[in-house]
Amino acid sequence: MHRRFMRRALVEARKGLGRTAPNPCVGAVIVRSGQVVATGYHRQAGTPHAEIHALRDAGSAARGATLYVTLEPCSHHGRTPPCAHAVAEAGIAEVVIGLLDPNPLVDGSGADYLRSRGIAVVTGVLEEQCREINRPFLKHIATSLPWVVLKAGLSLDGRITFRRGSRGAVTGDATLRQVHRMRDQCDAILVGIGTIVIDDPSLTTRLAGRRGRDPVRIVLDTSLRIDEQARVLCQQSMASTLLFCSAAVDPGKRERLAARPGIEIIETACTADGRLDPGEVLRLLGVRGITSVLVEGGAAVHGAFLAARLVDRVNLFYAPIFIGDGGNSVVEHYLAASDRNHAPRLVNTSIKRFGEDLMITGDVSYHI
Amino acid sequence: MHRRFMRRALVEARKGLGRTAPNPCVGAVIVRSGQVVATGYHRQAGTPHAEIHALRDAGSAARGATLYVTLEPCSHHGRTPPCAHAVAEAGIAEVVIGLLDPNPLVDGSGADYLRSRGIAVVTGVLEEQCREINRPFLKHIATSLPWVVLKAGLSLDGRITFRRGSRGAVTGDATLRQVHRMRDQCDAILVGIGTIVIDDPSLTTRLAGRRGRDPVRIVLDTSLRIDEQARVLCQQSMASTLLFCSAAVDPGKRERLAARPGIEIIETACTADGRLDPGEVLRLLGVRGITSVLVEGGAAVHGAFLAARLVDRVNLFYAPIFIGDGGNSVVEHYLAASDRNHAPRLVNTSIKRFGEDLMITGDVSYHI
Repeated sequence: MHRRFMRRALVEARKGLGRTAPNPCVGAVIVRSGQVVATGYHRQAGTPHAEIHALRDAGSAARGATLYVTLEPCSHHGRTPPCAHAVAEAGIAEVVIGLLDPNPLVDGSGADYLRSRGIAVVTGVLEEQCREINRPFLKHIATSLPWVVLKAGLSLDGRITFRRGSRGAVTGDATLRQVHRMRDQCDAILVGIGTIVIDDPSLTTRLAGRRGRDPVRIVLDTSLRIDEQARVLCQQSMASTLLFCSAAVDPGKRERLAARPGIEIIETACTADGRLDPGEVLRLLGVRGITSVLVEGGAAVHGAFLAARLVDRVNLFYAPIFIGDGGNSVVEHYLAASDRNHAPRLVNTSIKRFGEDLMITGDVSYHI
Repeated sequence: MHRRFMRRALVEARKGLGRTAPNPCVGAVIVRSGQVVATGYHRQAGTPHAEIHALRDAGSAARGATLYVTLEPCSHHGRTPPCAHAVAEAGIAEVVIGLLDPNPLVDGSGADYLRSRGIAVVTGVLEEQCREINRPFLKHIATSLPWVVLKAGLSLDGRITFRRGSRGAVTGDATLRQVHRMRDQCDAILVGIGTIVIDDPSLTTRLAGRRGRDPVRIVLDTSLRIDEQARVLCQQSMASTLLFCSAAVDPGKRERLAARPGIEIIETACTADGRLDPGEVLRLLGVRGITSVLVEGGAAVHGAFLAARLVDRVNLFYAPIFIGDGGNSVVEHYLAASDRNHAPRLVNTSIKRFGEDLMITGDVSYHI
């Protein structure tokens, strides 16, 4: 029974995926006599939390009802007033919580407050699923770094291009649609300047039949060699483009680009071998409240992020073809595992088909 | 009902997998009043066919019974007398056939003969499954070439070694056990000299708890540079080792090796760029009655066979790890697909887990 309504709350929560950073996705439902009488979800940071939407939706029906909420209601004054107070004021009799909020500002105090007001509190219902939808938030709260997903379309023999430095899709249309769904649910997309030079991608979200939300576009461009007419610099989008570069760039070009609306230049520390430090890039993104980053290539960016142990999850879309010698491998430079025990490893793997393509996905473990 | 007993006959047939070349695997069961009264399968070329085993097993119970057989009984005198005659003599009342034998020496004449003797004949029961277990035989009958399966253990990024030219298993133990099951069911294993130099494999079948059958070992060694103490040349095995080389080899070494028991040197035509012609190698193997070859590497052999469109099926065992820059890619040299439409493609793909590893398998299509 509790699980059934929590599943309904999870459906609500998922509507906010990719839209709530740096806040979590949260869903809530209010139930009376076994009937859902109101629902709500958190839409965007700075706007009302899920519980408030549901309470408003319920009106007087909230009195004596049960509230299901995927994440513990907050008890502190942030950009919005504390939800736990509103829940108590509305006369809710019982609160069923999926996951306690590890945010040090909450961390059990929401549940404690509710109990202190005589409200019955149940916790841990479908906790794993409630955790699952908020992995970016949970990592960001714990480490101040964004959750990093590496995504690539490749051949069975691990190639992401047909010829070195050439564009041309390796994977099929069904994969492309899924990539846009992934973009729609993450805060930022990151690519290296090589990918910009070769593919000139727009890095926007294009979904059939409904409005997608563009993630922040991030380009790692040590020397600021991006073409000033590149698509990522020239399009209509609600999201901005961040160019990370070293201190050693053409100051005139830097000023011209920085003056454009929606473009920001971020000077970043370099590694000993003179390239942008991916860990430092992620740190700066975390500070800006970006909780999830989709790393979309190219090969050297994949290598740098894996070698630095910064990738949390991987989605590999294999086209069922062999490319052979001509193309780039999916991981080049920086990473060179010496044996099975010293290689970044996927755990909790799962497989799904997208058209003819096969997606292998999993969490990355860097044991040793 | 027919399908149920044909499934039982297929179980019998599979007992002969990898042991019957150049003959097909065939299974037979004899059924009276809905009860299986006898079974049989073909064990080895030159020995009795499946029907004969089943008839002997049945004795007088065959009279008036139904015979299920996965492949059409033969009607010609080969190394054994025609089965169709024996079936009629035994008084079988009905014959249910999985697949008509495309062998031009049979090709419907077995069924015709049975009908001419007043026996009811049903054909095409579980035909696809009956075809499936005999793909090597069927290709060999049609083309005189063996069925070619490419097998590789690789990382998610398509590497088969950790460092170029180094040994060390990429995949895990469960995959290794499956590879030995595959070896047990094919007529020959083929590798390039590079693999011999690096890994010094024995290329035998090692199965836990039961006796495997060693396939013929084939080494492509253009210049005959194999170490005379290499394991493939020095072991106790019922199967022989075939070394394919060009005409330009050290005659002394060639003679010394050819004089060893179980070793054969086969001089082979080369391609314009001076390497062994894989098509010619397969032709010579087909002539010898080898109906299936497991190509086990290395990268250049994979490339040469794929580029020459000689691979029929692929089994890729992906370890869930990233290796990065150091290792060899699974396909190197010779193959360089220019785009999706010009790449060898897997169709009828399926996926299976072996421990932590993921196997992707499929038939190869070379459209265009």
